[in-house]
Amino acid sequence: MKISILKNQLNEAIQHVSKAISSKTTIPILTGIKLDVTHYGVTLTASDIETVIQATIPATDNGKEVVKVEEIGSVVLPAKFFVEIIKKLPKDTVDIEVLEGFSTIIQSGKSKVNMVGLDPEEYPALPAVDDDQAISVPGSLIKQMIRSTGFSVSANETSPILTGVLWSLIDGQLKLLATDRHRLASTQSALEEDITIHDVTISGKTLGELNKIIPDNDEAIEIVVADSQVLFKVGNVLFYSRILDGTFPDTSKIIPTEFKTELVLDTKKLTESIDRAFLLAREEKTNIVRLEASGDGEVRIESTSSGVGKVIEQLEAVDITGEPIRISFNSKYMLDVLKVIESDKIHIGFTGTMSPIIIKPVDDSQSLYLILPYRTSN
Amino acid sequence: MKISILKNQLNEAIQHVSKAISSKTTIPILTGIKLDVTHYGVTLTASDIETVIQATIPATDNGKEVVKVEEIGSVVLPAKFFVEIIKKLPKDTVDIEVLEGFSTIIQSGKSKVNMVGLDPEEYPALPAVDDDQAISVPGSLIKQMIRSTGFSVSANETSPILTGVLWSLIDGQLKLLATDRHRLASTQSALEEDITIHDVTISGKTLGELNKIIPDNDEAIEIVVADSQVLFKVGNVLFYSRILDGTFPDTSKIIPTEFKTELVLDTKKLTESIDRAFLLAREEKTNIVRLEASGDGEVRIESTSSGVGKVIEQLEAVDITGEPIRISFNSKYMLDVLKVIESDKIHIGFTGTMSPIIIKPVDDSQSLYLILPYRTSN
Repeated sequence: MKISILKNQLNEAIQHVSKAISSKTTIPILTGIKLDVTHYGVTLTASDIETVIQATIPATDNGKEVVKVEEIGSVVLPAKFFVEIIKKLPKDTVDIEVLEGFSTIIQSGKSKVNMVGLDPEEYPALPAVDDDQAISVPGSLIKQMIRSTGFSVSANETSPILTGVLWSLIDGQLKLLATDRHRLASTQSALEEDITIHDVTISGKTLGELNKIIPDNDEAIEIVVADSQVLFKVGNVLFYSRILDGTFPDTSKIIPTEFKTELVLDTKKLTESIDRAFLLAREEKTNIVRLEASGDGEVRIESTSSGVGKVIEQLEAVDITGEPIRISFNSKYMLDVLKVIESDKIHIGFTGTMSPIIIKPVDDSQSLYLILPYRTSN
Repeated sequence: MKISILKNQLNEAIQHVSKAISSKTTIPILTGIKLDVTHYGVTLTASDIETVIQATIPATDNGKEVVKVEEIGSVVLPAKFFVEIIKKLPKDTVDIEVLEGFSTIIQSGKSKVNMVGLDPEEYPALPAVDDDQAISVPGSLIKQMIRSTGFSVSANETSPILTGVLWSLIDGQLKLLATDRHRLASTQSALEEDITIHDVTISGKTLGELNKIIPDNDEAIEIVVADSQVLFKVGNVLFYSRILDGTFPDTSKIIPTEFKTELVLDTKKLTESIDRAFLLAREEKTNIVRLEASGDGEVRIESTSSGVGKVIEQLEAVDITGEPIRISFNSKYMLDVLKVIESDKIHIGFTGTMSPIIIKPVDDSQSLYLILPYRTSN
């Protein structure tokens, strides 16, 4: 294997695939990045078994030579060092040559690096993914849907299925949903094709990495769903993720649809008030704040920490209907929701002090957030 | 105590004094910030015993009212919460009122915070500092001198005196010097006054905090040296630091003045080469790199990590005199030096493979850096 390649393009591909590298892997070959050189260009592959990311750099881009291929071949290079050194090489062009025993010479200007390469034959094969069930979704939409739900996955590995986001697609309605049993986030969107695919659950952490690779524009991402894998095609990058085993719990019954009290609030003002109350609430670990709304639209938010003090916030509801309410909840969970809501106003529905709180952006009926209240004595 | 104060000015003073707050303190009163209100304005004090920082906000600034004093008095407020909440208050003005038992009400717009205050009588008295031995130095100069030496202090608490920077002032020559026994950094500057003051050693960590408070301009900082304390007067901020006990070792004899080999190198090129070699060297914990200079001015820098590979860097010396040299050293130490050197070119002097390496910026004869080489078999 012998190539000359433009540093920036190589670096960009490395940044993409290196997101699959895990520092915790116990499989030596997976500490490396695989390079495959063909006459078409260079393909980089990295994996932590759960996720495989592959990025291809075509030899020419808009008629400009990006890779000069002198000899095709493959090698696996130590990821951590390879990622760092390529960034810091002095010239715009990098020469890579694999010698006997996968020893690899990387040269740029007067810098010469000799890397201990590994045998690419030892690298695991890519997951087999049939192109049968595929959909096409604008990148910015997928990005937004992942962002709106991913924060609600469970951090607790004892229920692995809840560490994932449930993807369902029925009659062209794509819905993402995540819950950690204390809160829930869901969002949906109508796709152009009227298609139905079986439900899959994908690790929230993996989707977070995927989101870093998807550019924030309307270019379509192709999503291919196979039996045990989902493949996201983002431009020249292929992102494979394992589907989590198990059945995602049915959450449809816990979401109330009628409310005893309904509030409409200014998103920014509520965020700032909860944020100040949170500063004190977090001293108590529970992050607990109390919200009180009286019939005249006066909303009061309070938090207390015994050794430190008390925060009392007042704001006017834009609108209020139903009974007065006094309820306690985790302010961190509320801030997580408020952070992803882009609407100027939000709607909060209550059905009692022990029942789920439902939060919806006023100008986006497609997203819904649920927070369970705390049981408190007052 | 009762005041109305402009939030930004209060916030700025809080940011300054909070640098003295230690999360590790075992003295409850020192987890707080003391507020003293007089008709002159508000003074904030924070301390971790080693360091005391005091910032004063005058009631008026250029004829503009900053603090409206309704009642003078004092209180100690819980630092962590106070620092965070003031930043996040909704309006430009903050009202602070101390009630019975030091309970304190902070109000801004519709935010009301009730803080558990502590008795200011319990707060330790300020160190007594005589104004006898005082010098005046431009802020930007002090900042630069601290930056040029502070990184070389010892992180090892078993020799407390070496965790500090030695300040000596003889006949108007101010000199700062730090060493951790493996390396040394010193810099000096001629002051306007022809003054001599006894040597003092000040904690490198404390000087790092002081550097964050000194603005980067030519405004003079007054430095008052007492028996056990040094006081830095930075505008409206007073920064007291304890002088470290013990005698700083005499380092004058270990600095060679004649060299067998002398190199002049381009600072940027050397930095980039060492940086790349360091990427591999750090895998071996010792950070070891080897430098070879031949008589024709060809300089070669190498590092090796058995499992990963080898980096070989070549650069041309701007100038070389004396014998060829082959020497090994800690690349992290060299990078630390190169980071604070502003000169385009540096001079490196060698007196043998076992003797100290001396680095000097070419256009600044006032700074000197020393690194001990590694003993290696080849």
